[in-house]
Amino acid sequence: MPVITETSGAWTPSSLRAACRDGRFDRPTAGLAPGAVQANLMVVPREAAFDFLLFCQRNPKPCPVIEVLDPGRTEPTCALGADLRMDLPRYRVYRDGRLADEVTDVARQWRDDLVSFLIGCSFSFEEALAAAGVPLRHVELGRNVPMFRTTRPCQPAGRFAGPLVVSMRPIPAAQVPLAVQVTARYERVHGAPVHVGAPEALGIADLSRPDYGDPVDVREGELPVFWACGVTPQSVALASKLPFCITHAPGHMFVTDLRNEDIAR
Amino acid sequence: MPVITETSGAWTPSSLRAACRDGRFDRPTAGLAPGAVQANLMVVPREAAFDFLLFCQRNPKPCPVIEVLDPGRTEPTCALGADLRMDLPRYRVYRDGRLADEVTDVARQWRDDLVSFLIGCSFSFEEALAAAGVPLRHVELGRNVPMFRTTRPCQPAGRFAGPLVVSMRPIPAAQVPLAVQVTARYERVHGAPVHVGAPEALGIADLSRPDYGDPVDVREGELPVFWACGVTPQSVALASKLPFCITHAPGHMFVTDLRNEDIAR
Repeated sequence: MPVITETSGAWTPSSLRAACRDGRFDRPTAGLAPGAVQANLMVVPREAAFDFLLFCQRNPKPCPVIEVLDPGRTEPTCALGADLRMDLPRYRVYRDGRLADEVTDVARQWRDDLVSFLIGCSFSFEEALAAAGVPLRHVELGRNVPMFRTTRPCQPAGRFAGPLVVSMRPIPAAQVPLAVQVTARYERVHGAPVHVGAPEALGIADLSRPDYGDPVDVREGELPVFWACGVTPQSVALASKLPFCITHAPGHMFVTDLRNEDIAR
Repeated sequence: MPVITETSGAWTPSSLRAACRDGRFDRPTAGLAPGAVQANLMVVPREAAFDFLLFCQRNPKPCPVIEVLDPGRTEPTCALGADLRMDLPRYRVYRDGRLADEVTDVARQWRDDLVSFLIGCSFSFEEALAAAGVPLRHVELGRNVPMFRTTRPCQPAGRFAGPLVVSMRPIPAAQVPLAVQVTARYERVHGAPVHVGAPEALGIADLSRPDYGDPVDVREGELPVFWACGVTPQSVALASKLPFCITHAPGHMFVTDLRNEDIAR
């Protein structure tokens, strides 16, 4: 694998996707191709697709749909010429709810009955928060954002049910209103926070022990602010023990040709 | 059928639904139960439900989903205790794309594989326009709003494809910005207009000859303003020649317990 030397600004969405396809790119996409909408990938068999789309429709904050492809199709409208089977850096393949494989393309695993869902990701609103001058602790520390399973149930749909997962960012108290307003513009990528302060009200016992990602400290004068998280649909889909599904590997997102400003209101 | 003597303000959503159920109410719902969200009903068999939900997801302006019920279910979350089979004033039953029946309840036609879609209706934003001081010509004239098939195709999904249908309201030029801003708040009921002026750009040859509803005149100093219309999914579903579907009869909507303000942003 050749070493990638480009700086983050050097990647365009299409050059990054081409590098994934050629096997020249195999790492997380955070911070790359700035301004481009990045998306979570969830691929389910046709027989589960109605229930999964209904789950997304009923839970738009954790599951903001960017695009759903026709069964069997792999070229999304949000990135014409792309192929979802090979243009992400890394995939996970699940069978009966258990990780079966982690691979850099899924051409071999592809089937004509598979339906691909592209779901918004918080990278879009984090860029907007940073641009507005709101500090992001996990980015400063070079960590993954901390995520927590809550006791708040999602609206179930068919076989899909489970708790809301949230991401937490410590925000200086005086900047909480700004952080709410900035992210509220990005309804298609989780939107405004679901909760400010009081983690126990969400059933979160210990902020230093996230269920996913890395812990970050909440300092004097800061409040923990919680946003609905795109890990929710993935954790719900896995818990449902789907016979087969494919997702992106954590952090290894699909980079679309949409601009963050296209999806802001 | 007893004569209905209540004034429009006398109806609550639940009293209106109860009157439908008892056979005491059988007329259009426009202007009744002010402040309540009214919804278009579209009921399709389970085998077509994924494609129809996907069509709505891809065409949110003409098809803003208020709620989709689980297959076979008839009690919506937006009106607990209600029964979609009998709580609308009047229904149409279609077989193979052709009107088979117009009835005041569909209990007899109900099947366990039917999926009910409640889709936003422009009554919500018309109330807001009127409150903002924007005159509504078709209401003043006691007519149905004029609607036009355009040459702008919807994004197809499976068997569902067809042109966008728009409603037209003549708006004084100086109030066009206000009308845009007011309706933009109601994204879940068609939102901002899709077009202002220049009907020919939408393929509309003659504003005095609508495809649905009644004509209204556009006077000196007014512009025709076009909004995506909830007739779109119905016309697309019928054109697809679904073996079976049920809709509300035109103007005979389902009155939910949601308030217009609940769905405004």
